Amino acid sequence: MTLSSWQEKAAAKAATTYSKIPQAWRLEQKDLNQAKQQVQLTGPFIQSFLGEKEKEIINHDTTVLAKKLASREYSAAQVTEAYCKTAAVAHQINNCLHEILFEQARERARYLDEYIGSHRKPLGPLHGVPVSLKDQFHVKGCDTTMGYIGWIGTFEGDNDPSKVRKVESQVVKELLSQGAVLYCKTSLPQTLMYGETINNIIGCTLNPVNQRLSCGGSSGGEAALQALGGSSVGFGTDIGGSVRIPAAFCGTYSIKPSWSRLSYRNVANCNPGQILYASAVGIMATSLETLPFMMKVLLDTEPWRRDPEVVPIPWRPEVEQEVLQRGRLTAAEGDRRPLKLAICWSDNYMSPHPPVTRGLKIVYEALKGIGYKAIDWNPPSHQALSQLHLDIIISDGGHDVNKQLDLSGEPIIPPIRETFKLREPFTAIKCQELAIQGLELCRAYSDYWESTANDDGQVVDAVIMPAAPHAAVIPGKYFYTGYTEVFNTVDYSSAVFPVTKADKAVDIADPNYKPFNEVDQKNWEAYDPEVYHGAPVGLQVVARRYEEEKVLAIARIIDQVLKKNNTTL
Amino acid sequence: MTLSSWQEKAAAKAATTYSKIPQAWRLEQKDLNQAKQQVQLTGPFIQSFLGEKEKEIINHDTTVLAKKLASREYSAAQVTEAYCKTAAVAHQINNCLHEILFEQARERARYLDEYIGSHRKPLGPLHGVPVSLKDQFHVKGCDTTMGYIGWIGTFEGDNDPSKVRKVESQVVKELLSQGAVLYCKTSLPQTLMYGETINNIIGCTLNPVNQRLSCGGSSGGEAALQALGGSSVGFGTDIGGSVRIPAAFCGTYSIKPSWSRLSYRNVANCNPGQILYASAVGIMATSLETLPFMMKVLLDTEPWRRDPEVVPIPWRPEVEQEVLQRGRLTAAEGDRRPLKLAICWSDNYMSPHPPVTRGLKIVYEALKGIGYKAIDWNPPSHQALSQLHLDIIISDGGHDVNKQLDLSGEPIIPPIRETFKLREPFTAIKCQELAIQGLELCRAYSDYWESTANDDGQVVDAVIMPAAPHAAVIPGKYFYTGYTEVFNTVDYSSAVFPVTKADKAVDIADPNYKPFNEVDQKNWEAYDPEVYHGAPVGLQVVARRYEEEKVLAIARIIDQVLKKNNTTL
Repeated sequence: MTLSSWQEKAAAKAATTYSKIPQAWRLEQKDLNQAKQQVQLTGPFIQSFLGEKEKEIINHDTTVLAKKLASREYSAAQVTEAYCKTAAVAHQINNCLHEILFEQARERARYLDEYIGSHRKPLGPLHGVPVSLKDQFHVKGCDTTMGYIGWIGTFEGDNDPSKVRKVESQVVKELLSQGAVLYCKTSLPQTLMYGETINNIIGCTLNPVNQRLSCGGSSGGEAALQALGGSSVGFGTDIGGSVRIPAAFCGTYSIKPSWSRLSYRNVANCNPGQILYASAVGIMATSLETLPFMMKVLLDTEPWRRDPEVVPIPWRPEVEQEVLQRGRLTAAEGDRRPLKLAICWSDNYMSPHPPVTRGLKIVYEALKGIGYKAIDWNPPSHQALSQLHLDIIISDGGHDVNKQLDLSGEPIIPPIRETFKLREPFTAIKCQELAIQGLELCRAYSDYWESTANDDGQVVDAVIMPAAPHAAVIPGKYFYTGYTEVFNTVDYSSAVFPVTKADKAVDIADPNYKPFNEVDQKNWEAYDPEVYHGAPVGLQVVARRYEEEKVLAIARIIDQVLKKNNTTL
Repeated sequence: MTLSSWQEKAAAKAATTYSKIPQAWRLEQKDLNQAKQQVQLTGPFIQSFLGEKEKEIINHDTTVLAKKLASREYSAAQVTEAYCKTAAVAHQINNCLHEILFEQARERARYLDEYIGSHRKPLGPLHGVPVSLKDQFHVKGCDTTMGYIGWIGTFEGDNDPSKVRKVESQVVKELLSQGAVLYCKTSLPQTLMYGETINNIIGCTLNPVNQRLSCGGSSGGEAALQALGGSSVGFGTDIGGSVRIPAAFCGTYSIKPSWSRLSYRNVANCNPGQILYASAVGIMATSLETLPFMMKVLLDTEPWRRDPEVVPIPWRPEVEQEVLQRGRLTAAEGDRRPLKLAICWSDNYMSPHPPVTRGLKIVYEALKGIGYKAIDWNPPSHQALSQLHLDIIISDGGHDVNKQLDLSGEPIIPPIRETFKLREPFTAIKCQELAIQGLELCRAYSDYWESTANDDGQVVDAVIMPAAPHAAVIPGKYFYTGYTEVFNTVDYSSAVFPVTKADKAVDIADPNYKPFNEVDQKNWEAYDPEVYHGAPVGLQVVARRYEEEKVLAIARIIDQVLKKNNTTL
């Protein structure tokens, strides 16, 4: 049978994926109906489909799992089964998967169990750890559609049989070399270039913490799956907020490193030749501790030897240690510098909704409580950095996006129709003018950062700021990605952590608020305390280029204080 | 008086520069005539114009000078005077300066002498060290023409009085903060984009070691001045070989780091918005030891705090130490790995002339003599990497170059007329296609490098190869810059060191040589043993991205063996 229409091809692909869920894990219609009624799918609801041992396993974070696998308290088969089952349930109620690789995962787990049995040691630090992947990473034996119908059954639209389902992303090779088990690939928006997760193959992935909202994007399926317990760690990419936004929206953790810290080799991408402001591979997880653990595991493989774009900076535990040590100091301790943190209450272009502002206050108070220096952050225009970034992204006049759409004839998803409308590409002259503007804007941001030493001789260590102006987002109401996008333009490291949840009883909008501009007004009017109630509030902590160790150590300090204060409940 | 023609403006500028040479240092007409007759201006000829103490001072390298200045064995005034005088003589006989800053230098030296007198310590590790600069670096109080007549009396063609002669390159600030004395800026080719030093302001700078040849380019004046003893250390930039070619041609040393290791902020450039394959700031010196010393001095100032393009990798003496230690091992010492070096006898597109091949043999034999592993280097096409690089450089259709030329109406220098002929710029789509090609070529080169482990499990540490296919070059006969340009495309670190000198008695061309192609044939036919006799043969040692410590440690080992063997005489 030849499938003629894009609709048929998409439906067939979705059905094939679904068919890979074993019968035993299929939900009954009544459960599916119930799931539709639920506001919240995470926690008790999804766990009602799991056994006790499965619940125990999926409630561990990656670092604990890795230990229990290495000590053989758990077998790889047992852990794999628990995650595959949870992911299967997650997909049925939340529509978050593009590829299901349970058979391959079971085979891999058997191999790993034999390995540890015969070698008396784990294959590597990720021995038996299930790792999920955004559907942008190439894994042997399955598709990478990136949400494009025209990519189904091809290699990025190319039918060359030496490539189709045969290419493996470098980071995938690295994960496998360290013992990981791959078991699924997660949903994302068509083109990657949107902050919600919608495509013409699976439709839409909603927020499992509050189904009235979006899970965010572009690594949306990944965060949704993690919030549901179907993954403890996974990989996404970020060119405008794509690993940060979904983590913030779903109450999980993530890191967007500077772009050349992890390998992008053989990872599918939108506009792969646009490398002026390059997309970064990032890590998403259910605990903060997982992020430095995974960074170290990958960097210990020396990825720069296989991918010359990766900067050869090994993982630096001494930087983490120095920050953690300074984190225990107070201002009273003389010459030794306590941490100096800035709070960005607003970028003066777009005010965060009340739940996000309350999140910032919670962090501010928590830090004050343990004696940190905190200053306000009033940086150069985020909007200018964000606009410049967008100009570079559309410099090809939408050519690449439309080329991929034309492979199947599918339409572009409506919210980005205008952005990627086919038009004349910029000339190299215009691109170079933009590059110069970009350099100047990046320098101004860096100079502002340095200027924080003017008062006391100490440069700020990191900045706490919104990941978005809303706690998750009502579908169709994502008007401004400046809070995340700015750190792709300047290429800083940023980690996202959960702070609290939107609460209609306390998060009241000021009726007298005077918006900065029309976009701000649209966003302000989109705040609906009823709809947002219960939505996770995640924030980002940002440090400068290649400061992943620092950003994660600071996020860890904050995360521990918040947990002690019970704010994240 | 308003100067109307570009010729008048150029002549006035050259005359103004010349007028800054004090009367006492002006040569008599008979000496100028004699200089024109000389094949070699370096060594005894130029030193015949200097006093004994001056000769002593200019024969030290930077590291020794810095020590003697810090210990007050020399005063800053004394050292400055010696270098200013030598530079003044050098310019009169070799035409290598664009700007003369002797008055400022004397004032600075007075300040430094007072400083060390009253503080009892030097201002910094460069206290009193005269540093020369290619005329691309902005220094307060003087022009930066970069060889463009239209830039005379402006800031890069802009008449804004807040910028003209007021901007200072970041690296210049860093040098001053560490105690350097600035005293001159050196000649370069109009546009920077040529391997010889010719512009319409000063004309041409020839090779002071052999005046029948070019000094190379684009940092040509810098290398010529150093060969003449008028500078022990200076700064250039390199986008296709521009700090390596002149050093190789003039018998001096240089390093081209990966492009984001040193700051390019506020340095004038050709096509400043072309940052896909960016130009790198490099260091040029009269000794190998000066290069790591200067790298450390600059990186110790943490340039990445002021320039966000600089990657925050501090100078790593432990990498140097490890290489030097391995350099003392032999293959016999079991698990500890001696250095493994590759020799690139030819890139299979362009054969080096006999003197260069002999230079490679000298290094090969010297290394064999101390027990190193040496393999042959047969990498992926240098010509493809070089062509791709050129395509990116001309992607704006010559727009930037022609804009600068149009400021004055001066013509482009003939050898690059075709390259920069005004044409339609590429589209962003074409640029992105080239960027993807570039990524693939860089990955292939990196993979080839890794593949050197296939035989014995050990990846090659560095590659020794020609810096050009000729020992210096007969003016107008530079046909191929692939040997240097390839390492701008792949962004590897490379250092140049002198090996020997062309010798018509032994460097005989094989009359039966079968050229690879027409360009190779042109180059082969351009070899003239009589003309090249006495020309320096410099080679480059290349390691991967950000391996400046390694490349300099290996260059040091080779340099010391060669000196012991007396090959550089």
